[in-house]
Amino acid sequence: MGKRNLYLDTVPVEEAIRRYMEALEGLCEPQYETIPVKDALHRITKEAIYAKVSSPLFNASAMDGIAVIASRTEGAMQTAPLVLTEGEDFVVVDTGDPVHAPYDAVIMAEDVVELEPEDPAAAPAEADALIQPDAPARSGAPTRPDAPARVRITASAAPWQHIRPVGEDIVAGEMILPGKHRIQAIDIGVLLSAGITEIRVIRRPKVAVFPTGDEIVEPEELNGASPDTDTLIAGGAIIESNSRMFENMVTEAGGIGCRYPVLKDSYEVIRDAVRQAVKDHDMVIVNAGSSAGRDDYTVHVLRELGKVIVHGVAIKPGKPVILAIAEGKPVIGLPGYPVSAYIGFDTFVRPLIERMAGRQMAGRPAAGEMAARSLTEKAAASAAEAADRSSDDAAIDAVISRRLVSSLKHREYVRVKVGKVGGRFVAAPLARGAGAAMSLVRADGFCVIPQESEGVEAGEPVRIRLYRNLKEVERTAVVIGSHDLILDVMADLMPNLYPGTFLSSTHVGSMGGLMALKRGECHIAPTHLLDEETGTYNLPILRKQFGSGIILVKGVGRTQGIMVKKGNPLGIRGIEDLAARAGGSGQDQPLRFINRQRGAGTRVLFDYRLKQLGIAPEQINGYEREATTHMAVAAAVAGDSCDAGMGILSAAKAMDLDFIPIADEEYDFAIPEEYLQLPHVQAFLEVLGSDAFRARVQRLGGYTFERTGKQIRL
Amino acid sequence: MGKRNLYLDTVPVEEAIRRYMEALEGLCEPQYETIPVKDALHRITKEAIYAKVSSPLFNASAMDGIAVIASRTEGAMQTAPLVLTEGEDFVVVDTGDPVHAPYDAVIMAEDVVELEPEDPAAAPAEADALIQPDAPARSGAPTRPDAPARVRITASAAPWQHIRPVGEDIVAGEMILPGKHRIQAIDIGVLLSAGITEIRVIRRPKVAVFPTGDEIVEPEELNGASPDTDTLIAGGAIIESNSRMFENMVTEAGGIGCRYPVLKDSYEVIRDAVRQAVKDHDMVIVNAGSSAGRDDYTVHVLRELGKVIVHGVAIKPGKPVILAIAEGKPVIGLPGYPVSAYIGFDTFVRPLIERMAGRQMAGRPAAGEMAARSLTEKAAASAAEAADRSSDDAAIDAVISRRLVSSLKHREYVRVKVGKVGGRFVAAPLARGAGAAMSLVRADGFCVIPQESEGVEAGEPVRIRLYRNLKEVERTAVVIGSHDLILDVMADLMPNLYPGTFLSSTHVGSMGGLMALKRGECHIAPTHLLDEETGTYNLPILRKQFGSGIILVKGVGRTQGIMVKKGNPLGIRGIEDLAARAGGSGQDQPLRFINRQRGAGTRVLFDYRLKQLGIAPEQINGYEREATTHMAVAAAVAGDSCDAGMGILSAAKAMDLDFIPIADEEYDFAIPEEYLQLPHVQAFLEVLGSDAFRARVQRLGGYTFERTGKQIRL
Repeated sequence: MGKRNLYLDTVPVEEAIRRYMEALEGLCEPQYETIPVKDALHRITKEAIYAKVSSPLFNASAMDGIAVIASRTEGAMQTAPLVLTEGEDFVVVDTGDPVHAPYDAVIMAEDVVELEPEDPAAAPAEADALIQPDAPARSGAPTRPDAPARVRITASAAPWQHIRPVGEDIVAGEMILPGKHRIQAIDIGVLLSAGITEIRVIRRPKVAVFPTGDEIVEPEELNGASPDTDTLIAGGAIIESNSRMFENMVTEAGGIGCRYPVLKDSYEVIRDAVRQAVKDHDMVIVNAGSSAGRDDYTVHVLRELGKVIVHGVAIKPGKPVILAIAEGKPVIGLPGYPVSAYIGFDTFVRPLIERMAGRQMAGRPAAGEMAARSLTEKAAASAAEAADRSSDDAAIDAVISRRLVSSLKHREYVRVKVGKVGGRFVAAPLARGAGAAMSLVRADGFCVIPQESEGVEAGEPVRIRLYRNLKEVERTAVVIGSHDLILDVMADLMPNLYPGTFLSSTHVGSMGGLMALKRGECHIAPTHLLDEETGTYNLPILRKQFGSGIILVKGVGRTQGIMVKKGNPLGIRGIEDLAARAGGSGQDQPLRFINRQRGAGTRVLFDYRLKQLGIAPEQINGYEREATTHMAVAAAVAGDSCDAGMGILSAAKAMDLDFIPIADEEYDFAIPEEYLQLPHVQAFLEVLGSDAFRARVQRLGGYTFERTGKQIRL
Repeated sequence: MGKRNLYLDTVPVEEAIRRYMEALEGLCEPQYETIPVKDALHRITKEAIYAKVSSPLFNASAMDGIAVIASRTEGAMQTAPLVLTEGEDFVVVDTGDPVHAPYDAVIMAEDVVELEPEDPAAAPAEADALIQPDAPARSGAPTRPDAPARVRITASAAPWQHIRPVGEDIVAGEMILPGKHRIQAIDIGVLLSAGITEIRVIRRPKVAVFPTGDEIVEPEELNGASPDTDTLIAGGAIIESNSRMFENMVTEAGGIGCRYPVLKDSYEVIRDAVRQAVKDHDMVIVNAGSSAGRDDYTVHVLRELGKVIVHGVAIKPGKPVILAIAEGKPVIGLPGYPVSAYIGFDTFVRPLIERMAGRQMAGRPAAGEMAARSLTEKAAASAAEAADRSSDDAAIDAVISRRLVSSLKHREYVRVKVGKVGGRFVAAPLARGAGAAMSLVRADGFCVIPQESEGVEAGEPVRIRLYRNLKEVERTAVVIGSHDLILDVMADLMPNLYPGTFLSSTHVGSMGGLMALKRGECHIAPTHLLDEETGTYNLPILRKQFGSGIILVKGVGRTQGIMVKKGNPLGIRGIEDLAARAGGSGQDQPLRFINRQRGAGTRVLFDYRLKQLGIAPEQINGYEREATTHMAVAAAVAGDSCDAGMGILSAAKAMDLDFIPIADEEYDFAIPEEYLQLPHVQAFLEVLGSDAFRARVQRLGGYTFERTGKQIRL
């Protein structure tokens, strides 16, 4: 069965970071380069920058007008105007023109009256017009006769009035920017004005990213419906995607990601690639090959090339991390599961890149101990605390909506959706598997459960590290309950039709949604619960659960049924067959069913039908096998592990399955009255009633709109 | 004197935006393009993205171990182990490997005991070792004999255990991302996993930027001390810098800036350039030429090429703005003064680019009316309010430290420094001139004074739009008071030596600093106030002003004196000469002095000396001409507008001036006891005592360190 590195260490996170940082002492310092100022946006200065020249470069007119010698204007007043002659007493200046000696003051154009060159007397003012605003003043057009111009002024000028003295804005030799400053657009303008065209900045660290694995294929290879695709899939191909995620995470952290083609699972291939990469880069990431599987060579390669400091961290997801050093460069092995890969990068790689990129100096402090260095003990504590809070830039306090059990064996990162409901933030945990990449896409943030904790109870306060904009979270309609594809359509349409509003949906089944509504964790609960006594949908159960205060907004009619493989190769006709052929007969294999989770309206419907037909759950092969969405059921039926599942027509159509209709049902929304006027809930209702929504949903197929949007007060 | 467009309109800001947006109706919508997913970081999706393939692509093992047929493991237990044969009962699988029929469960490697191939019996467990963790498992090394392997299990496997069903993470056909979503690194991984390699996103709008003006030179032309430089300066050259600022502001707003070389002041040149640019770009910016000076052709050009919607806005700085449309594209003329240029861009250009770039849809809502569209009236009001608050993302409430008078004629943007002192944010206004680009660099944010307001009183609450990180502001030692070059050195060293701490200094003179300290507007007041009675520095005045509760931290000794031009061409020997030669004598021009502002310690010292010498202020030519920093005085003396000024030796050295020493003085820091333990104040004190600080300051020259860092309690 081959060699396996089964027994990884499980070093606590802090301890792993401490050991690695100690080993990296002096190896992760920022490096510098000189670049043109114009390209320096968001780069970080090495050292203080001093102006080379002053701005303005000379005494400059601050107005359009005339530059005069102040002493020669003395005595001018309304009742005793003075006439000045161009070239003798004044020169015409525009804003920004230099004012040279002997001129030492500027009079604004508005306060000057131009005279006819030959006119010996100070004529009355009315006739004079300095401008003709609408006539284009074409370049080269003659505007001045040969004789020197003369103007009349009616007030004296104070020395230096309307003159910007040399260096008023920037004085040569003055510090413009401090060291470790992140350069903004305005800084670029000022640097150039100060005669600086090149600047020394922190170099962006170059990070090599190596995907590895024989089973890994480039995304392009599986694109399109070529026959190769099926062969690749049957052979266990995995689409390479982590490296592109890493490459872009490197960019976000301030580095330059260099992604290399996939390396085969070969000790020599991996060794040679890493050996070369540590020469040309500041850091190397090897993806996958960090766990303990048969073909995981990375840790052995790194032992040959350098030193493995940590192999295995008590973090979940993310445990199989390798922290090593080769040729004085950090080399990090990250696990292959996308969520583990993300968390491993975020925890161990990002801080290193940010440190090399100088981000931690430029206002993003490192861990407390760095910020504090040699401060007094008390100050150090406050600095550490401040730094801690700040690394938490986008952290909020929320209550957790479900109990979260965690192990003392590791620190766990739980992805959550966050909504603001009734004045407080509510965090709803998402799928916790290491492979659940979609949970990362859907998540609004993380809740970290420390290694020393066994978890948190529902309703307890937790700290959430947000990675979505807080304002967005506040303007999001939180939808928890039954799953339908129309929710995706609505989430897509809302920000388009009503910019600045959003929809987030979590799928926990109809009953789960009503419970969440009761606990104040969502604004809207989609539901399709059949009341067995009356055979009607939603209203009876809402009345039972809530009494009043709830508006039932009618959604869509939809068709539930049994999804079977395309062409219905097993000739399944209905629920009866599932029971009748559950044990197999003759040469037939037993029919394999997949069910929905407890509390799902679809399961309630299935149970109701079983009861009507007098079939016991035990008679169904696969009754206990659960999936949590219509699409997951459809995917299972499309695969080779089961033959039938219950779900909606649109999901069957999306997966190109055959469908045996069982019932038409009503998929509606329960909304507490108090939330009805929230702008994002209003936007939800507007979208529900929109033509765009109807058109999109009709394309999905299997929906009706008889009472869509109708509101019923309980 | 040429034609001038003296009379611009002064349309209120809101009205200008309304008119322009109305005229642009339908012309600024997002455009789309298809790009590779791997390059899509931070781009915004056009429409919802649906998965092409499922992930996993097949039923995959979730563990390293063996895939088995669950039904054949039934009955296995500790006391009755089962032996399975490879190829018949099981196959070896690593995490992620496909599990094909008939296998339908996985048993973890840890729960499997490998048996010798020929061993017929279930031998005791102890001797079996699946792994040798430290031996590299080299590719191709023989690890398996020819006979089929056999394993022993001691527990049965439940069907589908440790198997990730096809589509567990992503189901083909499922929506992965909604439309108008800003793509994150994790999204890129998931898109690729879902078989998507290209994606339709909003195109980044292309914005042409034209600097114009005969006097404008490229920054490179003035770089270095070539003789050309002097000629250029004497001729009134202005370094072109706005266009590079715009280019980078375009980048920050989500567009692509295309900066063109400087256009000469020629109607035809500008017209032809703009005519071509509107064909190739989504927007055109013409810089300068938007005011009403002699050579301002832009507005005439735009009248020929299209339509000028607004010319002149009631905004300060920034009034001469042109909002026009040519060939269906927005063409905007912005003023030349850097601060006006910045504010004009920020107010009129940035929102347009963000709209075209789709930023407003992706969580950054536009003005209220956009967000609200057809919502009910009440909901519309809340949405507008929410949108309004959110466009204010980084806005805080602060108290203003100085009275701000503004005119009813315009909306004014006042740059402020912001600090957190004693639990509240204090905003200190900076220089308000349109040319004061450094005030933008130094500013932490803007305070907007509406057009209807005549200003705010000191201590009144104001709303500040921050453009510095709030956490940075909170960890900044706020220094207000006397100016010295060592403050720049300290600001430079602090974030280097104590990452995450910052220093901000505002220069209002020693007395101004002590007043600010009294009003709770700063943590530290640098002061060098001479007590005329005792002839000693700082302590007597602090005792008089504060009584107690203040620590005087000794700073540096420094030398004050008279700065004169290099080589002292006028042979100035001391203050006496300034008075004696103030009127000129014989062929001599009068000696021209420049003073410091009222409240500056340097002015107090000058007055003290004048008094000692029996000289009246009126005897000094230029006593009333004020500058606010040592460097500004030095720059003036270096220029041709004055001959002497009072200041510190280091400023004279920085500007290469001669220096006549007058007095040694003590430049110290007053710090309230309650702030002493703040981490950023501690960092300030640590820097003051550091070797790095002393070395840097010694290079400036003219400083002594006898009692540096000594603390004296009042």
